Amino acid sequence: MTCKIAIIGASGYTGAELLRLIATHPDMEIAALAANSKAGQTIAQVFPFLRHLDLPKLVTWEEIDFSGIDLCFCALPHKTSQEVISKLPTHLKIVDLSADFRLRDPAAYEKWYGNPHAAVEMQKEAVYGLTEFYRDAIRDARLVAGTGCNAATGQYILRPLISDKVIGFKDIILDLKCAVSGAGRSLKENLLHAEMSEGTNAYAVGGTHRHLGEFDQEFSALAGEEVRVQFTPHLIPANRGILATCYVSGDAQAVHATLVKAYAGEPFIEVLPFGETPSTHDVRGSNFCHIGVTGDRIDGRAIIVAALDNLTKGSSGQALQNANLMLGLDETAGLMLAPCFP
Amino acid sequence: MTCKIAIIGASGYTGAELLRLIATHPDMEIAALAANSKAGQTIAQVFPFLRHLDLPKLVTWEEIDFSGIDLCFCALPHKTSQEVISKLPTHLKIVDLSADFRLRDPAAYEKWYGNPHAAVEMQKEAVYGLTEFYRDAIRDARLVAGTGCNAATGQYILRPLISDKVIGFKDIILDLKCAVSGAGRSLKENLLHAEMSEGTNAYAVGGTHRHLGEFDQEFSALAGEEVRVQFTPHLIPANRGILATCYVSGDAQAVHATLVKAYAGEPFIEVLPFGETPSTHDVRGSNFCHIGVTGDRIDGRAIIVAALDNLTKGSSGQALQNANLMLGLDETAGLMLAPCFP
Amino acid sequence: MTCKIAIIGASGYTGAELLRLIATHPDMEIAALAANSKAGQTIAQVFPFLRHLDLPKLVTWEEIDFSGIDLCFCALPHKTSQEVISKLPTHLKIVDLSADFRLRDPAAYEKWYGNPHAAVEMQKEAVYGLTEFYRDAIRDARLVAGTGCNAATGQYILRPLISDKVIGFKDIILDLKCAVSGAGRSLKENLLHAEMSEGTNAYAVGGTHRHLGEFDQEFSALAGEEVRVQFTPHLIPANRGILATCYVSGDAQAVHATLVKAYAGEPFIEVLPFGETPSTHDVRGSNFCHIGVTGDRIDGRAIIVAALDNLTKGSSGQALQNANLMLGLDETAGLMLAPCFP
Amino acid sequence: MTCKIAIIGASGYTGAELLRLIATHPDMEIAALAANSKAGQTIAQVFPFLRHLDLPKLVTWEEIDFSGIDLCFCALPHKTSQEVISKLPTHLKIVDLSADFRLRDPAAYEKWYGNPHAAVEMQKEAVYGLTEFYRDAIRDARLVAGTGCNAATGQYILRPLISDKVIGFKDIILDLKCAVSGAGRSLKENLLHAEMSEGTNAYAVGGTHRHLGEFDQEFSALAGEEVRVQFTPHLIPANRGILATCYVSGDAQAVHATLVKAYAGEPFIEVLPFGETPSTHDVRGSNFCHIGVTGDRIDGRAIIVAALDNLTKGSSGQALQNANLMLGLDETAGLMLAPCFP
Repeated sequence: MTCKIAIIGASGYTGAELLRLIATHPDMEIAALAANSKAGQTIAQVFPFLRHLDLPKLVTWEEIDFSGIDLCFCALPHKTSQEVISKLPTHLKIVDLSADFRLRDPAAYEKWYGNPHAAVEMQKEAVYGLTEFYRDAIRDARLVAGTGCNAATGQYILRPLISDKVIGFKDIILDLKCAVSGAGRSLKENLLHAEMSEGTNAYAVGGTHRHLGEFDQEFSALAGEEVRVQFTPHLIPANRGILATCYVSGDAQAVHATLVKAYAGEPFIEVLPFGETPSTHDVRGSNFCHIGVTGDRIDGRAIIVAALDNLTKGSSGQALQNANLMLGLDETAGLMLAPCFP
Repeated sequence: MTCKIAIIGASGYTGAELLRLIATHPDMEIAALAANSKAGQTIAQVFPFLRHLDLPKLVTWEEIDFSGIDLCFCALPHKTSQEVISKLPTHLKIVDLSADFRLRDPAAYEKWYGNPHAAVEMQKEAVYGLTEFYRDAIRDARLVAGTGCNAATGQYILRPLISDKVIGFKDIILDLKCAVSGAGRSLKENLLHAEMSEGTNAYAVGGTHRHLGEFDQEFSALAGEEVRVQFTPHLIPANRGILATCYVSGDAQAVHATLVKAYAGEPFIEVLPFGETPSTHDVRGSNFCHIGVTGDRIDGRAIIVAALDNLTKGSSGQALQNANLMLGLDETAGLMLAPCFP
Repeated sequence: MTCKIAIIGASGYTGAELLRLIATHPDMEIAALAANSKAGQTIAQVFPFLRHLDLPKLVTWEEIDFSGIDLCFCALPHKTSQEVISKLPTHLKIVDLSADFRLRDPAAYEKWYGNPHAAVEMQKEAVYGLTEFYRDAIRDARLVAGTGCNAATGQYILRPLISDKVIGFKDIILDLKCAVSGAGRSLKENLLHAEMSEGTNAYAVGGTHRHLGEFDQEFSALAGEEVRVQFTPHLIPANRGILATCYVSGDAQAVHATLVKAYAGEPFIEVLPFGETPSTHDVRGSNFCHIGVTGDRIDGRAIIVAALDNLTKGSSGQALQNANLMLGLDETAGLMLAPCFP
Repeated sequence: MTCKIAIIGASGYTGAELLRLIATHPDMEIAALAANSKAGQTIAQVFPFLRHLDLPKLVTWEEIDFSGIDLCFCALPHKTSQEVISKLPTHLKIVDLSADFRLRDPAAYEKWYGNPHAAVEMQKEAVYGLTEFYRDAIRDARLVAGTGCNAATGQYILRPLISDKVIGFKDIILDLKCAVSGAGRSLKENLLHAEMSEGTNAYAVGGTHRHLGEFDQEFSALAGEEVRVQFTPHLIPANRGILATCYVSGDAQAVHATLVKAYAGEPFIEVLPFGETPSTHDVRGSNFCHIGVTGDRIDGRAIIVAALDNLTKGSSGQALQNANLMLGLDETAGLMLAPCFP
């Protein structure tokens, strides 16, 4: 059975990544592609790397006839996304890649994103899209909210450790190194090659990055008490990849054992042998997440490092994994391609 | 029917690229992997990006039992390759990725590579592996010689133009920009990140690059007269990709029409609309080759630019395409993955 | 004697590069800095890398009191530049870094830049700023027009060869590899790190790049006949540097001898021993230009490769060298800093 | 007065960086250059970017006549350095850039470097080369030990905070992002461009990096009690630059005030306004160190980020600054060049 798919917001990086992955998916067919600012253009004009694919022209999302569509990916900027999604037909399954439905609490949404939510009812209905931890709910969901790419990386490290209480909750530090495609195709001076390449800097220092809203929501729920982590993202001169270095108090071997157990059956999460360290080079372009645990020379301190591709496992790959579940397809379909190294 | 595959030289970049591609091939199973210098190690140790795959341990090639193997890829350095291949069982289909069987003339081989050929009989038997132009011979071959990655790029531009005599033969210039993975995993100062990144230089200037042997052999045969091109490769700070800029005398529209016609049915060669220009960004990690033609302001001069990924279409992708033909499989199996952008 | 300097257009890359160079100049003092879009800001806000310098705040150029200023650099976009310069006081020496005064013929200017020139009288007066070839005129000039960075690179190769008639004029090909800072700080999708890094492409193919106007003007004047070169620029993933590969007919040894002689006394132009090849890595951040000559295997063909830093020798370094001459200072003052490697 | 300088180990990156800096030093003359593995070659052969300089040929260090030399830089690998230095004439002032004389305790040296020290007496005499904190001792020293580049970066953040006891000593975390030139010109697979570019990874995780020996020695001495920090270095795809992100408990404003006061008169250390964050882009190629302080959303937590160039302020620039002091020259001579941006 081939499922018919629409993508709204097909001219950004996450839209393109969805097309890249679906290109070899055995059970999906792209029925419609929307990008309001580039309506009328072909995909080959917007993304020449996809020119070998036979795909529909870009239209505005209002032009799409959704009657035959099974599932729609929304890869729009936040705020725009909630406005569009609230107007889509109710029969449609939706995977949203924006930030709009990640936070369940309207007040938290407004605090982190600065505007009141325009679709509060749908916000309640949305399932948080971190597949490995919400799998059953995702299967039955109509609307799944893709997680933040940094938020996914941090949670792959910390969720099992918080659930099993093998680490302290008061001094968790997440130091992230993030590739530039996480910022999307937006035109900003600091994203120019001339200003990005050959250097690095921190940003949103001091607990101001919006993905903290997700950490707070998820970790506090898991712990049954308020958990606040410290989180500093850094921009590195690479196009794909997030490396999260996490500093915790706890027994490193217990930390490792907890993660090994938690991800034992997971097709995409690889916990490395104790003492090994992952690299973003080894997950680039793939849906895999590698996690390594090391003990510190200071007793009772552990360091956990996780690597994933922000555009794949951190965004469009996760979205496709969730769509597979929602459509009753093989969860790994279209997602087993190996990383692109070197 | 699943074909059993061996790879000799699995610890280099072209070996790794074969494994990346075959990972999603529906009809191939990796039965043996050899890398004499790393025998005893797992692939996860040598190439952590492949750690999700269930693959045999590395052994020496002498340890492989070839009785059940259908086809063997040899991804060894040149010279070593001919020595190993001459000792392999004769029932075995072989795709060689080295330079050893590209030149049919032993004297030409010795001239360009500096040593007499150690397997002259096999050299005669080998079929030149430029799939689009030797497809029928490859189907029936026992031994196929993968082309040089630069040689492939130049030939995709020039073969149809020479065959159809739409360009002059006396003033052909090929200016190539080549990514560093073409040099393999060899440890040289000029391949260090610190010396490569953020800059570019020409090398093998003046007609000394070995891939000229292939150009001379192939173009002279096509033209029915001796053709000598000028060819200057440049190293650019990128890991994958070759961009060939070719300067010829001839009518640009005729050049374009000839290329469009030549590649009309080809699954991997895309001739862009007249006046458009390809980018290596748009073929990275894929088996596609994009070709663009533009006329110059000077009448009677045309510029043709081609882009491909040296590790895929220029080497391991080509090798897999040829193996598919030799084994009677779908020619595009394992090769339709979209480029990895951004 | 300390000369008082103003810079108009100080918030772009060439303005910043001027400040970097002048920072260690013994005889220049920055008296005023203008950047109309960022007036009111400090240089530390616009260019944090210059925060250690004690510099005036940015103002609009209209706010500058030019009465005490000896020389003004204009680092504005073309078209804006001619409008501003035509309103500056006539006592002021001016070095313009834009394209506005490079072409002496108003018709040529309009052809390449698409608009009639707004200051035709000044256009006649301007001296072309290729220091090594216009040194005496520059010394006496009131207005010097900085050359295009690609135009400079090509002329360093070709001017002596054309003057001395050691090469053919009918088949000159210039294939350039250009770093991204040449495009300035402009916000374009293709200049984003995510779209630039790890790949390359040609642009302005077929003789449409504006720097051809300079080649045509200068080479035809030198030859005493119309000379038209083929010129294809390529964007490479590097921030600084131009590598020009030039294909000519002529005797390679004679070509080398001509260049050695032409640049014998020049402080910044280094002709390498015959057969050696330059790299942009070796000139980065400096005012040096390295040139190498090699003969081709085809008799009567030579390849000349030149490397310089587009922001320094190709633009702001050249501008400072000219300013030194105009002010009667040591020509090399502020310019002897070594390249930044690795 | 011109001082005569020798460099032993001139063919590595720190040796080259010394030459780059000294090139514009008004009071130093390079009298001898040694590089035993490349003796007989010119600097232009080993480092073409220095070809414009008139420098002596490379010799073995045993060939140098030290009688007229005022000061010798040793840029050798550790262990080799102590062996060579112990044989140099005793009149000679020496700045060592290796790790050999950084640790005052022979047992600590043996613990971190794995071999007993071969020059224990000199080890006692050596002054630790962190200029801002050992300035007076350096002025009078015969032998100064350059610090580790990571060790310098961490100490610029932490020394004043530990001295003034404005932070807790039990939970200090240093997460460093380090450019590849810190690994020197050594030939290792993971330093190849193909394996480094476009990604990042942690290394020496868990408290095994040798620069911890320096942190332990210096911080414990300052605190008057044992201080053990957590320190994780990461390799980033850049050639120059270290960014240190430091997580501490303490009042952020007090932290900022302490750093502002500590570095008030320093020519090379810039403490940014509270809440601003530095970037390695803004110090590249220079001797400056930028430090920023931000408070976290969690009360009582501060984040300090420091950026410097590992080859300049982290190594050769520091060495030159110390040499200036030892020779009675202006401390900033040869070191005021602005960073190279973009």
